[in-house]
Amino acid sequence: MSGGERPDPLEERELASESVFEGCLLKVRRDRVLLPDGKQGVREYIRHPGAVAIVAQLPDGRLIFERQYRYPPRRAFLEIPAGKIDPGEDILACAVRELREEAGYRAARWTHLGVMHPCIGYADERIELFLARDLSHVGSALDEGEFLELLTLTAEEASAAVHDGRITDGKTIAALFRALPLLAR
Amino acid sequence: MSGGERPDPLEERELASESVFEGCLLKVRRDRVLLPDGKQGVREYIRHPGAVAIVAQLPDGRLIFERQYRYPPRRAFLEIPAGKIDPGEDILACAVRELREEAGYRAARWTHLGVMHPCIGYADERIELFLARDLSHVGSALDEGEFLELLTLTAEEASAAVHDGRITDGKTIAALFRALPLLAR
Repeated sequence: MSGGERPDPLEERELASESVFEGCLLKVRRDRVLLPDGKQGVREYIRHPGAVAIVAQLPDGRLIFERQYRYPPRRAFLEIPAGKIDPGEDILACAVRELREEAGYRAARWTHLGVMHPCIGYADERIELFLARDLSHVGSALDEGEFLELLTLTAEEASAAVHDGRITDGKTIAALFRALPLLAR
Repeated sequence: MSGGERPDPLEERELASESVFEGCLLKVRRDRVLLPDGKQGVREYIRHPGAVAIVAQLPDGRLIFERQYRYPPRRAFLEIPAGKIDPGEDILACAVRELREEAGYRAARWTHLGVMHPCIGYADERIELFLARDLSHVGSALDEGEFLELLTLTAEEASAAVHDGRITDGKTIAALFRALPLLAR
C-alpha cells in the first residue's frame, strides 16, 4: 500500500506535536502537519497503547461472547473478549491474559488473524485479532470496575447477529470476518 | 439486548459530566458514573456527531475504494467513501453528499445496511452503513485539506483484501460484511 522507496504522495508530515489532554484513560495530542499541497493543517487524535480481541471457540464449536455496558454510547454491546495491551506486553501474552481474565478460559491452540484499526480518523489504536481453540475452563478474574455477562453463539448465530444488527461492535465484526472461514467444521 | 422494562443490571449511571477538551475536531468529556456494584468510576470519552460509510457498486459490479492517508496511525488506508454527519443532516442525505464529494458519483438505488460502532470503549460514534447502486458519474468536489486516490475492487478482491490484511479499517470491514451477501450477481 505504501509506495515502497518513494515517499507516499498522500503523506502528511509532522511539523509540531503537543499533548492537549492527559486523562486516566485518554491521551489526546494536537499536531501541526504539512499537507500534500504544501499547506498546513491541524490533526487532533488519541494515543492508544493498542489492544487485542479474541474469537474463542469452545470444544462444542460455540463462540464466547460478552455482553458489556459501554458508557460512551450508553448501552450494552455484544462483543468478543478484548483488552488493552500493557506496556511492553507481547500481543499473544495479552490475548492469553484477557481470555483468562474476562472469560475464564485458556486455549491450547492460538491463531493470529491479523490486525484491524477501529477509528483511523482520530486514534492510532490497532487491535490484534486472535482465534483461540482447544479451550479449557480455568475461572475468570475480572479487573476492578469491570462488569460483563458471558454467553455463547454458534458461528452461524454470530454471523446472523452481525447481519440483523445485534452485533455492531467494529472489532467483533472484523474478527468474525477473519475467523469465520477458519471455523467451518 | 437491553432488558426491556427492567433497568439493565450492567448499566452505568451518569453522576456528573464535564468537558475536558474542546478541539477543532475532538470533543472530550469526563463523567463520574455509578457502577453496577454501587461504587463510583470515571469515564473519559469522545463525543462524535456520527458518520456514514458507503459501499458503492459501479454498473460493472466493481466497488469504489479510496486510498487515504490517516495521520493518527501514520499510514495510508484502503477504505470506502465515508464522512461525518453535519448537524441536523439526514443520514441518507449525508451519504449522498459524501459519495458525490469524495468519489464523484450519484446513485439511483440506496440500501441502508445498518449501523456499526467503531470504538465503543472511548467514543459515542456510530457509523451508518449504506449500499449505493446504479451509479452515474457527476464529478467530485473534495473538502479543503482532503486528499485521496480512488480505485476499484471487485467484491471478491475486496473480501480477499480483508483476509490478507490489505484492508484493516473497521468501518470498511463492517460495511463489506453487511453488503457482500447483497452483491452476489
